[in-house]
Amino acid sequence: MRYAFITALLLSSAVLVAQSPTPAGFAPSSVESQAKAEKVFLDSVTPASARKWLAALTEEPHVAGTPAEKKLADYVLARFKEFGLAAEIVRYDVFLNHPKDVSLKLLAPYEEELSLREEPYVIDKDSTQEGMFPAFHGYGASGRAEGQVVYVNYGSPADFAALSDMGISVEGKIALVRYGGAFRGLKAKEAQDHGARGVLIYSDPRDDGYGAGEVYPDGPMRPESAIQRGSVLFLSHMPGDPSTPGWPSTAGAKRIARAQMTNVPKIPSLPISYGEAEKILRRLGGPVVPRGWQGGLPFTYHIGPGAARVAMEVQMDEGLKPIYNVIATIPGSVEPEKKVILGNHRDAWTHGAVDPNSGSAAQLEVARALAAALESGWKPKRTIILASWDAEEYGLVGSTEWAEEHAADLQKNAVAYLNGDAVVTGPELEMSGSASLLALAVEAAREVTDPKRGGSVGAGWESRQRAAWATATPIDINAKEDAAFSARLGPLGSGSDYTVFLDHLGVPSWDFGFNGGYGVYHSVYDNFRWMEKYGDPEFLYHAAGARLWGLMAMRLASADIVPLRYSTYARDLQVDLDNMRRDVIRRARTQAAPGEADAKPALNADFAPVLTALDELRAAGEAADRAADAAIKSSDAATVKRINEALTSVEAAFLDAKGLPNRPWFRHMLIGPGLTTGYAPWPFPALQEAVEAKDSAMFTREVARVVAALKAGTERLHTAAGR
Amino acid sequence: MRYAFITALLLSSAVLVAQSPTPAGFAPSSVESQAKAEKVFLDSVTPASARKWLAALTEEPHVAGTPAEKKLADYVLARFKEFGLAAEIVRYDVFLNHPKDVSLKLLAPYEEELSLREEPYVIDKDSTQEGMFPAFHGYGASGRAEGQVVYVNYGSPADFAALSDMGISVEGKIALVRYGGAFRGLKAKEAQDHGARGVLIYSDPRDDGYGAGEVYPDGPMRPESAIQRGSVLFLSHMPGDPSTPGWPSTAGAKRIARAQMTNVPKIPSLPISYGEAEKILRRLGGPVVPRGWQGGLPFTYHIGPGAARVAMEVQMDEGLKPIYNVIATIPGSVEPEKKVILGNHRDAWTHGAVDPNSGSAAQLEVARALAAALESGWKPKRTIILASWDAEEYGLVGSTEWAEEHAADLQKNAVAYLNGDAVVTGPELEMSGSASLLALAVEAAREVTDPKRGGSVGAGWESRQRAAWATATPIDINAKEDAAFSARLGPLGSGSDYTVFLDHLGVPSWDFGFNGGYGVYHSVYDNFRWMEKYGDPEFLYHAAGARLWGLMAMRLASADIVPLRYSTYARDLQVDLDNMRRDVIRRARTQAAPGEADAKPALNADFAPVLTALDELRAAGEAADRAADAAIKSSDAATVKRINEALTSVEAAFLDAKGLPNRPWFRHMLIGPGLTTGYAPWPFPALQEAVEAKDSAMFTREVARVVAALKAGTERLHTAAGR
Repeated sequence: MRYAFITALLLSSAVLVAQSPTPAGFAPSSVESQAKAEKVFLDSVTPASARKWLAALTEEPHVAGTPAEKKLADYVLARFKEFGLAAEIVRYDVFLNHPKDVSLKLLAPYEEELSLREEPYVIDKDSTQEGMFPAFHGYGASGRAEGQVVYVNYGSPADFAALSDMGISVEGKIALVRYGGAFRGLKAKEAQDHGARGVLIYSDPRDDGYGAGEVYPDGPMRPESAIQRGSVLFLSHMPGDPSTPGWPSTAGAKRIARAQMTNVPKIPSLPISYGEAEKILRRLGGPVVPRGWQGGLPFTYHIGPGAARVAMEVQMDEGLKPIYNVIATIPGSVEPEKKVILGNHRDAWTHGAVDPNSGSAAQLEVARALAAALESGWKPKRTIILASWDAEEYGLVGSTEWAEEHAADLQKNAVAYLNGDAVVTGPELEMSGSASLLALAVEAAREVTDPKRGGSVGAGWESRQRAAWATATPIDINAKEDAAFSARLGPLGSGSDYTVFLDHLGVPSWDFGFNGGYGVYHSVYDNFRWMEKYGDPEFLYHAAGARLWGLMAMRLASADIVPLRYSTYARDLQVDLDNMRRDVIRRARTQAAPGEADAKPALNADFAPVLTALDELRAAGEAADRAADAAIKSSDAATVKRINEALTSVEAAFLDAKGLPNRPWFRHMLIGPGLTTGYAPWPFPALQEAVEAKDSAMFTREVARVVAALKAGTERLHTAAGR
Repeated sequence: MRYAFITALLLSSAVLVAQSPTPAGFAPSSVESQAKAEKVFLDSVTPASARKWLAALTEEPHVAGTPAEKKLADYVLARFKEFGLAAEIVRYDVFLNHPKDVSLKLLAPYEEELSLREEPYVIDKDSTQEGMFPAFHGYGASGRAEGQVVYVNYGSPADFAALSDMGISVEGKIALVRYGGAFRGLKAKEAQDHGARGVLIYSDPRDDGYGAGEVYPDGPMRPESAIQRGSVLFLSHMPGDPSTPGWPSTAGAKRIARAQMTNVPKIPSLPISYGEAEKILRRLGGPVVPRGWQGGLPFTYHIGPGAARVAMEVQMDEGLKPIYNVIATIPGSVEPEKKVILGNHRDAWTHGAVDPNSGSAAQLEVARALAAALESGWKPKRTIILASWDAEEYGLVGSTEWAEEHAADLQKNAVAYLNGDAVVTGPELEMSGSASLLALAVEAAREVTDPKRGGSVGAGWESRQRAAWATATPIDINAKEDAAFSARLGPLGSGSDYTVFLDHLGVPSWDFGFNGGYGVYHSVYDNFRWMEKYGDPEFLYHAAGARLWGLMAMRLASADIVPLRYSTYARDLQVDLDNMRRDVIRRARTQAAPGEADAKPALNADFAPVLTALDELRAAGEAADRAADAAIKSSDAATVKRINEALTSVEAAFLDAKGLPNRPWFRHMLIGPGLTTGYAPWPFPALQEAVEAKDSAMFTREVARVVAALKAGTERLHTAAGR
């Protein structure tokens, strides 16, 4: 369900990617055999094959918990086995919902049944919606709600604060929210917390409709009737099966009832199209919306309430339903207990040609080509796991339950998690992830040809990073010279299956996709025709995606020294921390009473201990990388083993067992999804929570935990460096 | 014709307004009598009276060069005389145009005559357009043009560069430009320079129509049929009568023919509504527009060309026509040769209730209340001139010709120019001007009560300045503490009558207005009903405007030491220079080849000499202010005279006789309208031109001239300080 639309752009301003021997982590003696295996792998990947997988994967809609999704699990299992890989289906029974009876009615100023279905187009067979649920929200509550409507913009805490300043409340009303910004579950939560009776979330044409490009079926963007389905889980509080919060949904597991669940809404919600939303929005009274709230419909938006009254009826079939992860395993020859995991979900809200099956198709192609490499004699040192997750759309359920079940093993033995999801919507590579994977990702991406634009996909990525850095990075006019550009992997937020690995278990994680104009997210038009017409007509980027993804895995699994490089880790954190420091000063400025020249900051935030700890981490990371480079040359087995053990334990050292202040499942002290954003990351999430809460005491407490986490990671790096 | 929509927000980050004895410039012995006179003045102003003036001034449309405008000149003259002021009409014959025959036709994909008239509303008598010209452009060329259409966004140089990158040209086509950003004449110039046959400029609903607020007649913003008339003079090249470039249009003056004029378009142009523009825009083919080019109409914009073909027919009645400035004079009692000038234009494109007659009404109220103060025994030391300018809309013609005629006297004797124009569109005070007038403006604005919001209009202004400063000013996280806020007068660009005074003659200038939602700029709906319904129903802000404006004049005319304060002048310039320094670094970054870490700046820009000169100006300004404060106490006549002479000569010292590189009429080295913006200011305009031209040699040359100008001003301040 990853949504590129909200990808946060956080950029660095320090030195270049540290150059290590290429490919990083390989002893001179291993380079040739690895190169040979990689060539077999790369040459085995074909667009035609990816196309075939995508066609099969998108034959029918396959929502988690439905027979169609079980059928696809069997299909993927059969493919893995056909390629010669060991594979199995892992079933969990988890709490899910499907719509039983949903409807939405405009009651006033005139009666009209509003549509929860999308327009079928003759030229697009999949748009007929055979076998498709009507629009609903995953984990949406059952209930009936009726009332006047208030437009709350994106439904963020800031939007609700602005509403309150205007003296308007959603209490007892239906909140009409537009998609964009935060994860939709957090929109529902804000509306619920402010007393709304029900929530309608619509896609504004300015954001991903005609305001952003030509609409389907004439273009890739969202047409008038398209509906963004999706989960309304409070994703940033805790993902996974809400009936087993924090533990795996294994047979006989303890369960909690819906009423006890704290991360699902209690008021009904529905997603709607802008065609239907317009009928409501045009009938809102009250003040004209504040600057920035106006969308793309051709009239002046008002806050409401007003003439419009609506009634929503939402009856869900909810309870335990089976989901199916498909797990293929390529055992390691030297350290079989060490694991490199490639995961992609398989369940979709509709046919899901982009989300997630562009990724699933690429993943099958990775599997097929890895099998070819194995066939040619390649023997990875470490185990590679290919995971086809189920029920990601509801809240990363399949990956979370599996990783919770194997938590101890993964935390000790997982080298890295490589995520796919909506892998192709166009030609532009985006990558995010743990800073330790930057050097590897850059090297790998430089070896994958851009099939349409020429050069490598890595060069294109670096060039776009540079352009964004040039525009966004603050300039210090008092510095002797301008900061130098360096590429970075943007921090991971949430909204896809890397979450449990990185944020709960501390496994270095990486996520990627090839992006372009994509406005049909979670609608019936995210189907094979869309992909053939707009996303990747020749399936060239599916192939490029498979190549990049597989190459990352091959190197992680085979390198003599695991290619986790720590010399840039502190640099990226420093950029993030500097952004937070600027933000704190900005808030102090804007909170100060008008006219006060010597405004006191609202928050007493002393960043000094973190800055010191970052300096230590920087030095330790550089020393560890130097030690790794030296060990590669010396090939001393004990040293190599010590370094590998140390390097694979650094990320987990950044966890704190008590977790983040208001959401203990999230344990990483340096990164997490924003509490109020869901998709977008918050670096130093505990500090950011203190900043949001304007709580100086909390800030000081959390600084101590952040520093402890940084020091713990620094210690591991000292061990790697032999100190 | 000033247009608040594009007001540049340039903010400072240094120390507070230097506090001087209040009111600045008055000896203890003068304070009481001045206070008494000011009270008489302030109490004399009434909203009812302002309302009466506005009703009379907006009785009918009064375009420059028409009998209706002559009638209004007589009306204003009669009022001045009725108040007991000496006044006269000053006539110039200047080059103007009026529409004879204009039409616009859609030829394909179907034929339709497009409207150049606005919709009349029964509830608004003025909207019937009796006696109104159809839509046309002042100084628009006569001609016929036919062709396909290309959409060029705002028509800026950057927009045309983007077009060229897309491989699309307007050569031989009709350019469809949207209003916003630069002055419309510069849009026409860009289109002409790129080979367009004709230009259509339309108002996009996102910018000042329904995307910005409720539209007329239900709200203050631009409705579907509303047309923004206006001049297409190349305003940033030279204002005034284009038949007498640089010299006054006095009887017998040398004239140049239209063909010789370099600052008027040669291709025909027309302004159109978004209702009509939509009919063309919907039929454009070609690529989808780049990010940021999409407007508020409910479909995806395309660049063109495509199915749409249009024919424009523009026949103008052009030639010399009479214009009438009305000049009232209140002679000074001590230094009658020294002049404080309050100017506002009177001509309008339509009825002009906002633009300019909210200002004209306030000006008449200033005149009436000043007369009352004189009646009560007040004797200003210096002469006050009230000027009601004509033909401002065509290109600041009335003010420019008058000031060119009196150039030598004004340059020597004008203490300050205080401009009004569209003085009221709502409740929020905005002020711009020369930094030397900041202290006076702040003091005066603090004494004018905000009639609806309470407190003073000055306190509201400072509070909004602070909020904007807090948001926009860069943060230096390495500084010991955050910069302190200080209010500033934003730099003046162009688009109103201060231009000749500040940019050509070096007279300290100030401009102001009370602003709110105003989308009917230069349309038939800018009329009395609009003002009564939306702008200022009780005429309270007309009264507040008159009070503030008159108070400024009274203090400038009566202070023992002229209230021109120079201690903040260098501070504001420093902020502007720092912005330019950041911009230069940003350009170097974005121009650098992708992947190059050590990008070389495209421009070799050494700012050091300017920084040094600013330091000297700062010290000299502070010394001059200290000397003025000391002299006020000592009351030594010779010292006071020396200081007054020096202080009133500083601004003119910033001129360079050779003028700016490509536009010698503009002579101020520290401020000017942007060459490619027209409305928006360019601080250090010659340096900015070098930056735009990427011309390092030019930059170095212009730095020398800027430093010379700064040093010349510094010298005058030394004289003031007695050094």
